[in-house]
Amino acid sequence: MRVIYNERMADLAHLLGEMAGLAGSAMDRATQALLQADLPLAEQVISEGDRIAEMIADAEEKSFALLATQAPVAGDLRQVVSAIQIVNDVNRMGTLALHVAKVARRRHPNHALPEAVNGYFAEMGRIAVSMGQGAKEVLESRDPERAAQLNQDDEAMDDLHRHLFTLLMDREWKYGVAPAVDVTLLGRYYERFADHAVEIGRRVIFLVTGELPPDADAES
Amino acid sequence: MRVIYNERMADLAHLLGEMAGLAGSAMDRATQALLQADLPLAEQVISEGDRIAEMIADAEEKSFALLATQAPVAGDLRQVVSAIQIVNDVNRMGTLALHVAKVARRRHPNHALPEAVNGYFAEMGRIAVSMGQGAKEVLESRDPERAAQLNQDDEAMDDLHRHLFTLLMDREWKYGVAPAVDVTLLGRYYERFADHAVEIGRRVIFLVTGELPPDADAES
Repeated sequence: MRVIYNERMADLAHLLGEMAGLAGSAMDRATQALLQADLPLAEQVISEGDRIAEMIADAEEKSFALLATQAPVAGDLRQVVSAIQIVNDVNRMGTLALHVAKVARRRHPNHALPEAVNGYFAEMGRIAVSMGQGAKEVLESRDPERAAQLNQDDEAMDDLHRHLFTLLMDREWKYGVAPAVDVTLLGRYYERFADHAVEIGRRVIFLVTGELPPDADAES
Repeated sequence: MRVIYNERMADLAHLLGEMAGLAGSAMDRATQALLQADLPLAEQVISEGDRIAEMIADAEEKSFALLATQAPVAGDLRQVVSAIQIVNDVNRMGTLALHVAKVARRRHPNHALPEAVNGYFAEMGRIAVSMGQGAKEVLESRDPERAAQLNQDDEAMDDLHRHLFTLLMDREWKYGVAPAVDVTLLGRYYERFADHAVEIGRRVIFLVTGELPPDADAES
């Protein structure tokens, strides 16, 4: 029983990690589509959303089957409960990448972003990819130090997000309201993407140490 | 065993319902604080966030204890798994109400909203309260028809949200960029609040019918 449980839990953690990596890759391409007003790339990201949705359903069923057939207890049970919660986070990460791609599609053939903020979004995209990869590694290694690194990435993301808002609120902002609305929503998508990666790290830290660090979005 | 399970599950569903109702009430007062630039009311909502956080931790522990001590199977197991997922939704509803209150606090003594959009937010606040109450009733009654009504409220919310964006994107928008940024974020908070209430309805429909309706935010 225990051998089968360990195999299936490793399989589930691998699937969750794969999805976090895919969400990071989707955010990477969505960011490129946004920066280059690249419609085919945006469409590609959007059409891959169905594949992520299938993997989510698969992960939910695998978690449920683990509970139903292996009846795990104590620490093993906590792992499965965490997996059920983490499925939601990777699902949101994927959906947020799709939202970015949809903004790129909606504004095509125009660029959604004024050139002045391209650098911010290029950097937020880079951090998002790194966090998707980080969440993947944390899920597969369960290393609390790697999980803590996600917080550093998240702080960098929050810094960029704050700078972006300073820019928007400045009298010098000369691009008008419509791009400001897009920039506001897009900034929120990247920030929430990062929050979900941090949330995955929190859940893993909780599994390993028994302590749950504070919620990222609750502070903002 | 089964009698104890039923009692504890009813207790957990009641706790989740209570939290959904509290999130609705928090959104109600946050909306009043926003519309009237009422700082004490905003502070009250924010300080009650700790109470919701405690209830969240309590609900997570109760779900875990149900799995650990009652070892539910089949439909009973699905109920507990759904409860674990629903905890996340009520948690987000509470956090989003807090975000609205924090915008009211940040802009005080000014009003965050230009008067022209007050009517939209009054109505979005009204729908949010109704959806918090609806989610509460659905959790306690498990009535799929009541759950489906949440979708109608959500459509009304989406309509208001779309109108709001039309207003923002219009050349006639004369309030400048800073209020547009606040309106954009606030609109997103109400929309997501509604999505989470719908998500609770979806989970309940799934429990009762075995079919999971499509995800609300994935469509937008």
